[in-house]
Amino acid sequence: MEGHPTLQLRIFDLNCWAIRYLSKRRQERVQLIGDMLRRERFDLVLLQEVWSEQDYGNLKVKLGGCYPFSHYFRSGVIGSGLCVFSRFPILDTLLYQYSLNGYPYMLQHGDWFCGKSVGLVITEISGIVFNVYVTHLHAEYCREKDAYLPHRLVQAWELAQFIRHTSKAADVVLLGGDLNMHPEDVGIRLLRSWTGLQDAFTEATRFEGCEDGCTLVPNNCFTVKTELMPFPLGIRIDYILYKAVSSFTVKCEELKTTMGTAPGTDIPFSDHEAVMATLHIQRQGQAAGASLSTVELTLADVVTEARTEVGVGLRAAQRQRYSTGRMAVLALLLLLLQAVAALGALAGLAAGQPFPKLSFSLLAFLAIGVLLLATSLHLFHTIEVKMLQGTEEQMRMVLWALQEHPSDG
Amino acid sequence: MEGHPTLQLRIFDLNCWAIRYLSKRRQERVQLIGDMLRRERFDLVLLQEVWSEQDYGNLKVKLGGCYPFSHYFRSGVIGSGLCVFSRFPILDTLLYQYSLNGYPYMLQHGDWFCGKSVGLVITEISGIVFNVYVTHLHAEYCREKDAYLPHRLVQAWELAQFIRHTSKAADVVLLGGDLNMHPEDVGIRLLRSWTGLQDAFTEATRFEGCEDGCTLVPNNCFTVKTELMPFPLGIRIDYILYKAVSSFTVKCEELKTTMGTAPGTDIPFSDHEAVMATLHIQRQGQAAGASLSTVELTLADVVTEARTEVGVGLRAAQRQRYSTGRMAVLALLLLLLQAVAALGALAGLAAGQPFPKLSFSLLAFLAIGVLLLATSLHLFHTIEVKMLQGTEEQMRMVLWALQEHPSDG
Repeated sequence: MEGHPTLQLRIFDLNCWAIRYLSKRRQERVQLIGDMLRRERFDLVLLQEVWSEQDYGNLKVKLGGCYPFSHYFRSGVIGSGLCVFSRFPILDTLLYQYSLNGYPYMLQHGDWFCGKSVGLVITEISGIVFNVYVTHLHAEYCREKDAYLPHRLVQAWELAQFIRHTSKAADVVLLGGDLNMHPEDVGIRLLRSWTGLQDAFTEATRFEGCEDGCTLVPNNCFTVKTELMPFPLGIRIDYILYKAVSSFTVKCEELKTTMGTAPGTDIPFSDHEAVMATLHIQRQGQAAGASLSTVELTLADVVTEARTEVGVGLRAAQRQRYSTGRMAVLALLLLLLQAVAALGALAGLAAGQPFPKLSFSLLAFLAIGVLLLATSLHLFHTIEVKMLQGTEEQMRMVLWALQEHPSDG
Repeated sequence: MEGHPTLQLRIFDLNCWAIRYLSKRRQERVQLIGDMLRRERFDLVLLQEVWSEQDYGNLKVKLGGCYPFSHYFRSGVIGSGLCVFSRFPILDTLLYQYSLNGYPYMLQHGDWFCGKSVGLVITEISGIVFNVYVTHLHAEYCREKDAYLPHRLVQAWELAQFIRHTSKAADVVLLGGDLNMHPEDVGIRLLRSWTGLQDAFTEATRFEGCEDGCTLVPNNCFTVKTELMPFPLGIRIDYILYKAVSSFTVKCEELKTTMGTAPGTDIPFSDHEAVMATLHIQRQGQAAGASLSTVELTLADVVTEARTEVGVGLRAAQRQRYSTGRMAVLALLLLLLQAVAALGALAGLAAGQPFPKLSFSLLAFLAIGVLLLATSLHLFHTIEVKMLQGTEEQMRMVLWALQEHPSDG
């Protein structure tokens, strides 16, 4: 492609829903995904929820011929689930693990164990440096009462900060992933306005796929229909975002999503639909500057809105830190009381053993259990408070900087 | 300073040893540090082990006049302990928490609870963009049998990667902190060769301070003398490192360390000596290029050496993951056995209760405790294995890239 004025790049993004033992027909689907990727020969493939390294290994073997370069990002107990396949050499990588990611005791949600992260892959195509980010943010389990909103906002903020700080030498920035946010949500607006990333769906010249670009749709046989009840068309939570940092322009010529079943089979690739973008990248004389003052005004509004939500989360976390701390202190007091009673009995101060031994021991064990659990939770919520405070302060600093130096935004 | 050909910058770095309830004469020393900083009027102050946010708050109030800009980095249960005071506006910040940082059950060492991190602060002085990093790596408790070496190497690697990826738009990079590594250690060599940072001590035109630039010296009344027995002069583990990224040169005109007691008192500022550097920064026509092939050769050697150490850590972590997993399975089997016995007794299969109730309950509680503990440890060591594997793979990729594209190094 050397010497051509326009570089065409085809990007594939999919949340593969490949959870060992839990995801339905996983191995079959991973095989289907591999077959399709080999057939379609994209330039860059960004996958999420490839939780099993064995699945990644199998894909790597299958795709070695057409995607000679790949990277799997490890993090957390299970892994980050993130991986990238590329037709072009991967020059460097970096992983950033989000500081907040749900609660370890919410076992039924499990996000905490995944070590949700953003992975960065740097590649150079026809002399253009691409910073390619892949991520998966905390899931939204209940939109009406979204207990994880502050955590997801912290993640969106950290994602934006990570992209801003690491992309300064890039010509083009690409982000693909399951952001678990609807297009109008505050987190998406925060991410977009703070990084300047554009949404391939809204910018695309041509679109083909599920209505409104939805990526979680009711007529996919793996989606939970009750969760999508309020959204008859489905929801759009998987994105390809992009921007040109230096003297380049990026245009999305075409955006597609998969629609239900994979060709020639009776099952879809995943419970999510894949997003496929065709981008045209062109060198230009001057860097395009958006109307800065408008951008800044929106940014200040969005950061203020996000900061309010983070503040709500902070107060909830402070309450939990307090109540778990109190519980730990109470358990400790009970234990001390028992110790005194036991010592008293040993010293013969009491006429006889006031409690039966069994109940006494059970109570002691219970108190120890509560003490350990409450202390762990207290420590956990202390971290949560600190990270929420840190984010709130960073946002405050950005708002201050926007007021003081409006042109640097 | 605008218009002057040379910018002079005075930097102060100190591990403050300000652990609440544990560090001797903490409040007095924090006050002394504040007094001295106010008197000396450095340009940038990088502090570590300011664990209490109250101490930071007090310093902020005291130093507000001469250092109007500051930032405290929050992370982990206790905090990162890192903060920066600056005479110049702080434009942006970012925190990166190291993926490995000791073990939660090593309570006597406590590093795990601190959420060891690297903090980045961006500032602009006379039109020159400075990326200032402050960090504190995992302590070395026993040099002969250093169980934390793989963790510290992962941290040194992540520190280098973080600096490389975030400093691409910077004119000058500064790093200050307690790296807990001697100058010739593999981690320091890895950090320096992978980032190109120079050591202010070895580069300084003038030096004044403890012999060999040591920052942990036996004649500081707070150091543990037995730990320094093999090093009669002390050890150098606190550093100021720097490099110019674009068309600038940085020269260290003077390096100083404190030497024991603070002026006019009978106590030192900390158990560490402070490092103070005076740098001269000058714009030049062309960026200075080191002899690349030599640098690359050294880099390949150092990465190979570090990778070997990470491999040793990986195998140890895999053994621990296995043994804790086995312990959890055994505890589960014991519990199941007890459940069967209890059910048998309830169903009247046994002639009588074969065990006394108390021992039976105690045994069950013990098994539950062991099960929970072993499972937590197993999860923890699983994360450790993943992060060590990830680092090893990144290092392998760098070695491959050095062989394939020697000029990109």
